[in-house]
Amino acid sequence: MKILWSRPLACAFIFAAICCAQDAVPLTSNVQGAQYPQMAPDRRVTFRLRAADATKVQVRVELPKSITLDLTKGDNGYWLATTDPLPPGFWYYSVIVDGFTTLDPSSKTYFGYARECSGLEIPGPDSMLSDIIDVPHGVLRDVWYYSPSTQAWRRAKVYTPPNYDKQPLTRFPVLYLQHGAGENETSWTNQGRETFIMDDLYSVRPATKQMIIVNDNGTVPARTSAAPAAGGRGRGRSMADNIFAEFGQVLINELIPYIDKNFRTIPDRDHRAFAGLSMGGAQAFRLGLGHLDTFAYIGAFSAAVANLDFAKDYDGKLADPQINRQLKLLWMGVGKQDGLHDGLLTIHQNLEKAGVHHVWVESEGGHVWETWRGYLPQFASLLFQDATTK
Amino acid sequence: MKILWSRPLACAFIFAAICCAQDAVPLTSNVQGAQYPQMAPDRRVTFRLRAADATKVQVRVELPKSITLDLTKGDNGYWLATTDPLPPGFWYYSVIVDGFTTLDPSSKTYFGYARECSGLEIPGPDSMLSDIIDVPHGVLRDVWYYSPSTQAWRRAKVYTPPNYDKQPLTRFPVLYLQHGAGENETSWTNQGRETFIMDDLYSVRPATKQMIIVNDNGTVPARTSAAPAAGGRGRGRSMADNIFAEFGQVLINELIPYIDKNFRTIPDRDHRAFAGLSMGGAQAFRLGLGHLDTFAYIGAFSAAVANLDFAKDYDGKLADPQINRQLKLLWMGVGKQDGLHDGLLTIHQNLEKAGVHHVWVESEGGHVWETWRGYLPQFASLLFQDATTK
Repeated sequence: MKILWSRPLACAFIFAAICCAQDAVPLTSNVQGAQYPQMAPDRRVTFRLRAADATKVQVRVELPKSITLDLTKGDNGYWLATTDPLPPGFWYYSVIVDGFTTLDPSSKTYFGYARECSGLEIPGPDSMLSDIIDVPHGVLRDVWYYSPSTQAWRRAKVYTPPNYDKQPLTRFPVLYLQHGAGENETSWTNQGRETFIMDDLYSVRPATKQMIIVNDNGTVPARTSAAPAAGGRGRGRSMADNIFAEFGQVLINELIPYIDKNFRTIPDRDHRAFAGLSMGGAQAFRLGLGHLDTFAYIGAFSAAVANLDFAKDYDGKLADPQINRQLKLLWMGVGKQDGLHDGLLTIHQNLEKAGVHHVWVESEGGHVWETWRGYLPQFASLLFQDATTK
Repeated sequence: MKILWSRPLACAFIFAAICCAQDAVPLTSNVQGAQYPQMAPDRRVTFRLRAADATKVQVRVELPKSITLDLTKGDNGYWLATTDPLPPGFWYYSVIVDGFTTLDPSSKTYFGYARECSGLEIPGPDSMLSDIIDVPHGVLRDVWYYSPSTQAWRRAKVYTPPNYDKQPLTRFPVLYLQHGAGENETSWTNQGRETFIMDDLYSVRPATKQMIIVNDNGTVPARTSAAPAAGGRGRGRSMADNIFAEFGQVLINELIPYIDKNFRTIPDRDHRAFAGLSMGGAQAFRLGLGHLDTFAYIGAFSAAVANLDFAKDYDGKLADPQINRQLKLLWMGVGKQDGLHDGLLTIHQNLEKAGVHHVWVESEGGHVWETWRGYLPQFASLLFQDATTK
C-alpha cells in the first residue's frame, strides 16, 4: 500500500527520523551500502577511509569557507576524522592521500572543479523541499544533438514538467538553465536537485507555470580527440570566447532549434527564459541581453560579473530603461556572504538609478548550491506569468 | 551545415583519426579537458597522476585478467606508467596510492564493484557500433517510482526507441534489462552504451522490433537511513533473498505496473522480455522462469548460474519441453574465456538433451562489457518478431 505523504508530515517524519535517531547514519549522498561518511544527530560528519600505507590522509570540504581535516590512523589501516556540525546543504569534498587529491569511492560523484568530485548531502529542516516526495513528477531526459559549430555530438538534460506527458496537446515555455564554472549539464540535477525542486514547486504553488527546463554544458570542450591533430582549433581561445561566443553559437543556433523541433515548446521570446549561476549568470547577462529577440526573461544567480561599464557593456542596455519594454523579468540574486555580493549590489544600485526594472534578492549564505536551490523556485514561480497561453 | 555521416564513412574516419594520429590522444572516457589517460596509436595507455608525497602509486586495470601497474615518479610530483597495447572495449580501473584504493579524478565515473569506478574506453574497429552516429535516436529517461515493499523511492532508466515519440499512437513491447553484481541502473547506459547500440541497431537492421528498454537496480538497498533504526529489516538477509525475492517483488508488483501505466506499452507476456548479465542473468533465469505469465522471452548473458539440478531448480521447467509452448525465446550467451563458460555449456547440453528450445551463443572474450555490448543487439534483434502487433 502506497503511503500518502502530506508535505508537512513527510518533512516532520524524515527530519525526526534523521535528527532523533540515536545513531549516526550514512549520508544519502553515499553510494548504496557505504556506511561512511556518517552523520550524527548533531550533523557532525565522520569520515573513514582505508589507506594502510599512507603517511597523511586529509579530507577537504568546500564549505562557504573550505576546511581541511587531518584524519587519524586507527586500526586495520583505517583513518578517521569527525567534523564540527556542518550546515545543511550540498558540499563538495575531496580526499587527499599523500598529496594525491582524489575522490572518496564511497560517495556518489558530482561533476565540479572540472572533474568528478565527492559530495555531502547534509539534511536540514528545508531539505524536503528539494527531495522526492509523493507529488506528480516530471521526467528528466538525456537528449543528444549534433553541433556543427563544434563538430561534436552534445548531450543536454531536459526536464519536462508533470503536465507534459499528461497533456499531449499542450505546448510549454522553456527555461534554459546553466551551471557554474567547472560544472556541466548534470550539475543542476545532481547537485541542484532541479527536478525534485520543480516537482515540489508545482505542488506547493500551483500557479507556477509548468515549463520545460534545459541544462546544457556551458563550457564548450576543446576538440582534442576523434579528429586529426592538424587544425589549430581549441588553441589560444580565451575563456570569454568559449563561454560567450562559442557557447552562444551552440545555444542560439543549435540547441534552441533542436529543443523547439523535438519538444512541444512555445517557440517565441515571450515563452523562453535564460538563467544561470555564477559563470552561468554571466552567460545569462551576456547572451540574454545579446539575444532579446530570443529571450524575454533573464535570471542571474550569484552572477560572476562585476565592474560593469554601464555605458558600454551589453551595448549599454542596462543603462537604458527602454529595456523595460523588452524584458519581462530581470532577476538578480546573491548571498550576503558571497564574495561577489558587493559587485552585484553595485549593479543593482545602478539599475535602480537608471530606472531599469528588476527583482533584487539578497539571501543569507554564500556562493554555494544551497543558495541556488533556494533561488530556482523563487525565480521559476515568476516566469511566464503574464505571457499569453497558447 | 550538418555533416551527413554514412556509417562506413564515419567508422573509417573516426578509426583513422584515432589510429593514424601521430600523437597519443585523451580517451573519450576522460572528463572534459583531462589530458590523461592518453592512448597511443598502438593502443598503449599512459597514466599520469599527481601524488607529490606518495611512496607507491599503482593503477589496476580490470582486463579479463586484471593487471596492476607500478607508476614511476617523475617531475613535479607526477607519476607515470604505460600499459602494453590494450584490447578494445570498456575496462574498469582503480588507482591505489599508498594502500588507498580510489578513482582517477580525470576519468568519468562508472558504478561497479559496489562503488564509483574509473573507466577506460579503448576504441577498436567495431566501436562505432556502440557510439553515437547520425541515425534516429531514442531518448533515455530517468523515472522515479515509489516502492511500497522497500519503502523507498526508486529510480529506473527507461530508453524509448526512435519511433516512440514519432508515433504517438503506437504501443511498444518492453525489455527489462539488468546489470551485474556491484553495478546499478546506470550501468547498461554508461558502461553498456545501450542507447547508442539500440539506435544503431534499428538503423542497421530495420526489421528489429522497436522496444522500450527498462534498467533498474537489481540489488535492493538495505534500509539504513531516513528511517528509525528500530526495525530488523536489512539485517540477516541473504544475497539470494535480495536479488531474487526482494527484487522480484519490486519488478513484478511495482516496476512493471509503473511502466505499463506510464508508458505506451503492450502490457502482456508476449510483449515483455527479461534479460540480464551475470547476476542479472541469474535473475533472468529465476524470475523469468518464475513468472511465465509475465515474460515470454528470457535472455541470459554470461549468467552467474551453475550446477543446476534440472529436476528441481526452477521447478524443473528447464527439464520439460513443455516450456517450448510458453517461452518464445530462451537465449544464452557466454564468452569462451569466461570462468562461467563450462557451467553454462553444461546447461546448454542438458537443454539440448531435454529438447528445450534455446539459442546458444559462444563468443570470443571473457566476463566483460565488450561481450555484453555484443550480445545486446544479437538478442534484441530476435525479440518480439512473431508477436502480434497491436
